[in-house]
Amino acid sequence: MAHSSAAQQRLAALSSHLSRPTARLPDWNGALAALEATFPADQLSLDAATREAHGQSWGSLLPPSPPAAVLHAQTTSDVVAVVRIATRFGIVLIPTGGRTALEGQFTPTCCNPPVHEQWNGVVPGRRQAATGGTVPRPTIHVSLSRMNQVLQLHEQDFQAVVGPGIGWQGLNEHLAAKGVKLMFPVDPAPGSEFGGMAGVAGSGTNAVGYGTLRAEWIQSMQVVLMDGSVIRTKGSNRARKSTTGWDTGRLFLGSEGTLGIITELTIRLAPVVPLKVALTSFPSVADAVTAVVEILGAGLTPTSLELLDGTSIRGLNLAKLLPDALPEEPTVLMRFSNPSEAVNRASLEAVATIVKRAGARELKIAKDEKENDELWKARKSQYWSQQLLIGKGCRTLITDVCVPISRLAEFVARSEVLVQRSGLVAPIVAHIGDGNVHRAILWKGKEGEVERPKEVELLAKALVKLALELEGTCAGEHGIGLTKRKYLRRELGDGTLALMRTVKRALDPLGLLNPDKVLFPEGEEEYM
Amino acid sequence: MAHSSAAQQRLAALSSHLSRPTARLPDWNGALAALEATFPADQLSLDAATREAHGQSWGSLLPPSPPAAVLHAQTTSDVVAVVRIATRFGIVLIPTGGRTALEGQFTPTCCNPPVHEQWNGVVPGRRQAATGGTVPRPTIHVSLSRMNQVLQLHEQDFQAVVGPGIGWQGLNEHLAAKGVKLMFPVDPAPGSEFGGMAGVAGSGTNAVGYGTLRAEWIQSMQVVLMDGSVIRTKGSNRARKSTTGWDTGRLFLGSEGTLGIITELTIRLAPVVPLKVALTSFPSVADAVTAVVEILGAGLTPTSLELLDGTSIRGLNLAKLLPDALPEEPTVLMRFSNPSEAVNRASLEAVATIVKRAGARELKIAKDEKENDELWKARKSQYWSQQLLIGKGCRTLITDVCVPISRLAEFVARSEVLVQRSGLVAPIVAHIGDGNVHRAILWKGKEGEVERPKEVELLAKALVKLALELEGTCAGEHGIGLTKRKYLRRELGDGTLALMRTVKRALDPLGLLNPDKVLFPEGEEEYM
Repeated sequence: MAHSSAAQQRLAALSSHLSRPTARLPDWNGALAALEATFPADQLSLDAATREAHGQSWGSLLPPSPPAAVLHAQTTSDVVAVVRIATRFGIVLIPTGGRTALEGQFTPTCCNPPVHEQWNGVVPGRRQAATGGTVPRPTIHVSLSRMNQVLQLHEQDFQAVVGPGIGWQGLNEHLAAKGVKLMFPVDPAPGSEFGGMAGVAGSGTNAVGYGTLRAEWIQSMQVVLMDGSVIRTKGSNRARKSTTGWDTGRLFLGSEGTLGIITELTIRLAPVVPLKVALTSFPSVADAVTAVVEILGAGLTPTSLELLDGTSIRGLNLAKLLPDALPEEPTVLMRFSNPSEAVNRASLEAVATIVKRAGARELKIAKDEKENDELWKARKSQYWSQQLLIGKGCRTLITDVCVPISRLAEFVARSEVLVQRSGLVAPIVAHIGDGNVHRAILWKGKEGEVERPKEVELLAKALVKLALELEGTCAGEHGIGLTKRKYLRRELGDGTLALMRTVKRALDPLGLLNPDKVLFPEGEEEYM
Repeated sequence: MAHSSAAQQRLAALSSHLSRPTARLPDWNGALAALEATFPADQLSLDAATREAHGQSWGSLLPPSPPAAVLHAQTTSDVVAVVRIATRFGIVLIPTGGRTALEGQFTPTCCNPPVHEQWNGVVPGRRQAATGGTVPRPTIHVSLSRMNQVLQLHEQDFQAVVGPGIGWQGLNEHLAAKGVKLMFPVDPAPGSEFGGMAGVAGSGTNAVGYGTLRAEWIQSMQVVLMDGSVIRTKGSNRARKSTTGWDTGRLFLGSEGTLGIITELTIRLAPVVPLKVALTSFPSVADAVTAVVEILGAGLTPTSLELLDGTSIRGLNLAKLLPDALPEEPTVLMRFSNPSEAVNRASLEAVATIVKRAGARELKIAKDEKENDELWKARKSQYWSQQLLIGKGCRTLITDVCVPISRLAEFVARSEVLVQRSGLVAPIVAHIGDGNVHRAILWKGKEGEVERPKEVELLAKALVKLALELEGTCAGEHGIGLTKRKYLRRELGDGTLALMRTVKRALDPLGLLNPDKVLFPEGEEEYM
């Protein structure tokens, strides 16, 4: 990725336009030599296959954008070394892990226009706002996946210290294999790893019971900053509670790899307790909401309250994942956790009364562990079963708005009109207890298609507009990345965006750490 | 508080020493004229009685330090106006509310030496590190207590929007009076108000069940920044979950009034459910810890698990708050919440088995609401009953370390040796489920005493040292303020302190917002 002197001039112009200090023009050859001198060959991938795999962003439908190299960090010192190389040679760094992010969080912008209204204008460089020209931005993916150790386990403290490369699933398997009756209860995408989980700070199906990753599950982190320093956000403190001023660790939650590189996490664990799955369907989404609010208001303890609309259930029925077909109407799948099976039974008796009052069909309660798993697997296979609604070539854009639960029924009804008007199919799976609605926009993809069709983009945008009108958010749990920056000004307002920029500038003055994510480059305008 | 030209010279020297931009030398007369022109007389207190009341910091045993004026803000615009006056005339602002903070969070430093190893060296001005001289620092207390409205209530969303001047108690009384079966469950000091609660971001007796104020109870805030801008940290978004990048709102949690002034909070509420109180005593603290870990590991749902040592129980017995005297040995008072009395009974049966296995006496379960209240009131009267151990003239310093629960028994045993060596009396009340130990150091105060006796200060420091050695924190829930800054470097490390300073500088470049709190003035050294 050599750069011409014309490109150098453009970069200089851009740098001055952005009025941000730049160490120097990017020197990829210098950086490469330093990387090769610093790391053994098995930690540095320069081959096309690895780079291309890293350039693919599943589900976000961004055009592929491979990094110039992938550095496989094995220690915190490795991360410090690559930070020093990056700042010396002006190279962009993007921390990566499970690469399950849906909004382009780990996609190099070297090869994408940062304002991506038109996905067709793919050019090998960064578009300059002033001239429309491009500049090269050599990027190193810093993969933390090899730092996947469970470093400490403190059973009595319900606590573990882990590397950023292990995931919640891997950790829970590790604990189960050791016979430890503890687990990490927040369950974002399968395959996600703790570094990225903290980076996006989302949640999953269990947020209604356990809260999100912004709650107190991540107690402290070790972070490498762009000045090469290594901090522990809570020092050596493993106490459950601490009030030592503003918690700088909270800045890295949701920073999407733009403020620092997380190399270790101290996390809290929950006890493993008996679970029970149940489901029922309702005449309408509004009735389902009524029941859910009553369940929560009664202090019952669901870990999960999941809504599938009739269209989603049709997909499930087509997939024949359950012995009997379900009625194709709004269905709430619930999971309760309690210290004993007896309390689970008592809870579900109370739930049965509540849902009946809201007009539901009879509550179907899993008889045993097998039925528990069967029902839960059906929910978890949603992505695949929904594809049967379109058949071969089906493509999916998973939307992720979240609204106050009191506005959920209205959101569903009004978004149904938008979907019908678009001519697309867009079944709902929602974390109804949280008001987090995933409409999966489905369409039949064309050969070689790398961008979202226009009508898909328009529908996704209309859903966000509606959510904001209903006091909701554009991003319930998937973060902002590249694809949702355009909504932030309207949602957060100028002042909060300005404060976010102040923080970004203070932590990454050279703008080399996952640039262009969450916030547009300065000087480019958010639009919606 | 007029200043001499010599003082002006010292301030100029200090400013340059601190290498921090300063708008101008403080001009108190100019500020006062602007205050009087801007606010009606009933919003501005200049009388000695009000100022002196504001200068008293209960429990922290700092010398009284009255502000130059108290401004009673009634609207966000009032706060913006006083921020503009402060920055124009170089005046210090300290946001205040219930003034229950224990570590000097709202104490003007105009009249205290910022390094307060010796409390006797009280001088009317700020000590300059380089010369030991002092400079005047006129300070306005910005009281938010009149902004005590419940602005919105969203029952279905388990959410309210409140002013910073209402407290958790006032809010809960308001909800109960309206027949709303919701409550705010985090219970810091009686009398604390939401602005300060977010400012310290501590907890109380319910953290073991509900988490602390750093969990997801405060969803967003309206904050006035020192540039006069007003931000909403989550925009207009009231969704339960949101992942719009790094959450700048989290910076203000625990900022102790040093980064911005909170003028509105969107908070989450919990359902009111039946509570049951029980207690028992154990042969040793280690046995109590064993039982507590087992209770938590079983997934039982205590809201509170409180340890009182034999000395604390002796105080309770002297106060005759309960019909029968309790055995003077380590006692755990528990409160459980469950959706029904039946589940509470089932929980307490499980608890009875667990505590018996750990060697406890029989579990005494409150028969009814009256006994619930009686037991809980005994716990809450701890501060007063402990004073009976010393009798008339008893003074108290409440310490606040927190250690991992696995190290709690060791902390108690080793701190017992320190207490005995000191010759002081220091009973324990601990949030045992969180490892948060309050040893109340008691002594007979002398007439007119305004500082902590040396042996009290030394014992408090030794307790912190021990907690840090055991991977704990100096401040479990009371924050840092002035009195615990000296421990931060050792606990957090240089890197995290530097990052905190970077954030402070970015948000308060003139250093006028509650200066010297949490962090020492730059150039002065943390010590321990």
